[in-house]
Amino acid sequence: VEADDTDEVRDLVEPLHPADIADLIELTPGDQRRALIAAIGDQIDGEVISELNDWVREELIDSLSPHQVASFAAELDTDDAVAIIEDMEEADQRAVLRALDPDDRAAIEEALSYPEESAGRLMQRELIAVPEHWTVGDVLDYLRGSEELQTDFWEIFVVDPGHRPVGTCHLSWILRTPRVVSIGDVMKREQTLIPVDLDQEEVALRFQKYALISAAVVDSSGRLVGMITVDDVVHIISEEAGEDILRLSGAGEGDINEPLPSTIRTRMTWLLINLGTAILAATVIAFFSGTIAKLVALSALMTIVSGMGGNAATQTMAVTVRALATNQLTTSNTWRMILREWWISIANGIALGFLMALGCQLYYHDTALSLILFAAMIINSINAGLSGVLIPIGLDRLRIDPAITSTVFVTTMTDCMGFFALLGLATLFNVH
Amino acid sequence: VEADDTDEVRDLVEPLHPADIADLIELTPGDQRRALIAAIGDQIDGEVISELNDWVREELIDSLSPHQVASFAAELDTDDAVAIIEDMEEADQRAVLRALDPDDRAAIEEALSYPEESAGRLMQRELIAVPEHWTVGDVLDYLRGSEELQTDFWEIFVVDPGHRPVGTCHLSWILRTPRVVSIGDVMKREQTLIPVDLDQEEVALRFQKYALISAAVVDSSGRLVGMITVDDVVHIISEEAGEDILRLSGAGEGDINEPLPSTIRTRMTWLLINLGTAILAATVIAFFSGTIAKLVALSALMTIVSGMGGNAATQTMAVTVRALATNQLTTSNTWRMILREWWISIANGIALGFLMALGCQLYYHDTALSLILFAAMIINSINAGLSGVLIPIGLDRLRIDPAITSTVFVTTMTDCMGFFALLGLATLFNVH
Repeated sequence: VEADDTDEVRDLVEPLHPADIADLIELTPGDQRRALIAAIGDQIDGEVISELNDWVREELIDSLSPHQVASFAAELDTDDAVAIIEDMEEADQRAVLRALDPDDRAAIEEALSYPEESAGRLMQRELIAVPEHWTVGDVLDYLRGSEELQTDFWEIFVVDPGHRPVGTCHLSWILRTPRVVSIGDVMKREQTLIPVDLDQEEVALRFQKYALISAAVVDSSGRLVGMITVDDVVHIISEEAGEDILRLSGAGEGDINEPLPSTIRTRMTWLLINLGTAILAATVIAFFSGTIAKLVALSALMTIVSGMGGNAATQTMAVTVRALATNQLTTSNTWRMILREWWISIANGIALGFLMALGCQLYYHDTALSLILFAAMIINSINAGLSGVLIPIGLDRLRIDPAITSTVFVTTMTDCMGFFALLGLATLFNVH
Repeated sequence: VEADDTDEVRDLVEPLHPADIADLIELTPGDQRRALIAAIGDQIDGEVISELNDWVREELIDSLSPHQVASFAAELDTDDAVAIIEDMEEADQRAVLRALDPDDRAAIEEALSYPEESAGRLMQRELIAVPEHWTVGDVLDYLRGSEELQTDFWEIFVVDPGHRPVGTCHLSWILRTPRVVSIGDVMKREQTLIPVDLDQEEVALRFQKYALISAAVVDSSGRLVGMITVDDVVHIISEEAGEDILRLSGAGEGDINEPLPSTIRTRMTWLLINLGTAILAATVIAFFSGTIAKLVALSALMTIVSGMGGNAATQTMAVTVRALATNQLTTSNTWRMILREWWISIANGIALGFLMALGCQLYYHDTALSLILFAAMIINSINAGLSGVLIPIGLDRLRIDPAITSTVFVTTMTDCMGFFALLGLATLFNVH
């Protein structure tokens, strides 16, 4: 496709949706990407840029002048413009802001003043707010009369004279109501207000829970300052849920467009931490090398005990991290959850331990070894179940992201305890 | 809270949103749940039931008569009613369907005729479709005049005489346009149509990609048969992304409200499969027991080699599974991804292998052992990187869900190869 024929490329790209153009740019290998961008330069607008993946976008933005970036940003809603500008370096950011017209600049600067990943960064300032005493007819005339309004919205917000939201009104309700009815009689008073400094993960959970399409964002004094729409939240829901899987595995952002050195650095850091825990577990083994020398079979069996513990702990950990991420674990049911895992781990420990012991007895004909294996499997299963649930919950209480840190602690626990239980018991009972 | 004072409980629950009532019921432990439900019985409506978690809902539905279920289902949109009914046993399902009035019954029966987890199950039949020749005024009069319309919609669909969608029109566009303008001039012709048999995961990806609020569902002849709204898709996005983490760990649905025996069964099945792979890996060790007897230090070092391989593979696997789930891996960039992982694994293998070999040399003063450890670490790192990317991709090509099955294969590869590389090299070079 990319063999120099600029016109043909342009014709192919012409009818595509911005999201598809963005995908096309991402899929093109790095060296051909520049040529593609040069060829379709004038079809790349703000929409396309805001759909691009972070790494690819940064590359593209770096190649543009501040004025070009500013003109793209001006086309977009505040939230999308902020998303483009917030990742830039500070000097470039200032240059772009200077190139914007004063209104847009003020809006974007205000958004940048809110913490990263907060509702304030996510919201757009373009919204429709009307006073409570208007009638449906007034609203219709206002909407038809104001040329400079943004064109896409799903709800209008009704505010009091202090600009505090008092209700919200789906457009479908307005459409179905005669002009003379007061908007105060059409709106719904119960609404989900989003504080401007709320974390985006929490915003996403509220949208999900209450099936919202858009929601009013209010500042600390309760004034309406912006609106968040579901299409921005959908990205967050998917990212946050997908992030946990990558964090648990220590793969960082796991972005396949991230430059190689940066990916290697992230992954290696994680592996180095895990190397520490692996060496710790190996130390436990080295401590018992006398016992292993007497009975080499232990070196094979110990990997099964620690491996099964690791698997059981991973299950429990995944369930706990997921429950924490979706706000399903509250103080009232934490104990219930721990007790659940306690019983699950005992049941699994006895069943798998028995199976292993039976196999060991049939293979090695060593009753003492089989009994010790049975006991070690049960001990490590309980250890795995409790570590898998208590470590993420404990980290969460300490306000540390359990998805990032749990795995290291949990695998250390199951590896060390797996080796220690089997080799320790074997030494204690002098099995050989 | 739950100490018999029915009236007080009712007063507390009264002002809550259906989603909050559902949460409250879920959080109440099993034995008290019955009492709570009895106390607030008349505040439980279709909305509350459709917000309940599968397991809790099943328990509740089982305690209701088919007529009660039918009356709840009748209150709801088709998609929510189907979600309640589809999990029931067939005899109960028939009883509920019989109790519904003919229109609702036909709608639900038709939805049930589509495959599970398809667009057909997800869509609601209640939607607004108007002919292209109508004016904005006609649409407004139609909406104001029809009492029995559902009240919540975000877009209206414009159809041709064959009831095929030709365009879609956001409500905000209608509100901002004078009555005399033809709807055909307001609508957008490009639209994302959803085939009725499309998998729900694919539906969710399209909503995400094109930032849709609602979309028309069409049958195989292109006729408009229903509409999917973003609030239903939001649940799926979050579930699908969250499911992968649970599947990779073999924790099944990971639902904390699932009955204990069923959870134990799911987890045990997974652990049994992994027991098989652990035994396979242990067999590799047993095969080399002569070598270990000569040099017990190998038994500690081999767990580090296999453990580090496991960690590296988990990173790669998480990235690959996530990329597959979000449709980021296409034929054009699969090779790029594999090559990426190849270089990452070589870099990590050399760095970590060198570190390990250095430590080994300082501790054991055994150059041959250190060199073998270095080689084994590199071999297993490459093995881990390639398994982590090739196994999920291969399973995906075979149309097997990589999130469920990858872990078993990948850990088998890294464990066996980890042990084999170190012990095999030690045997070959007769290290002691």
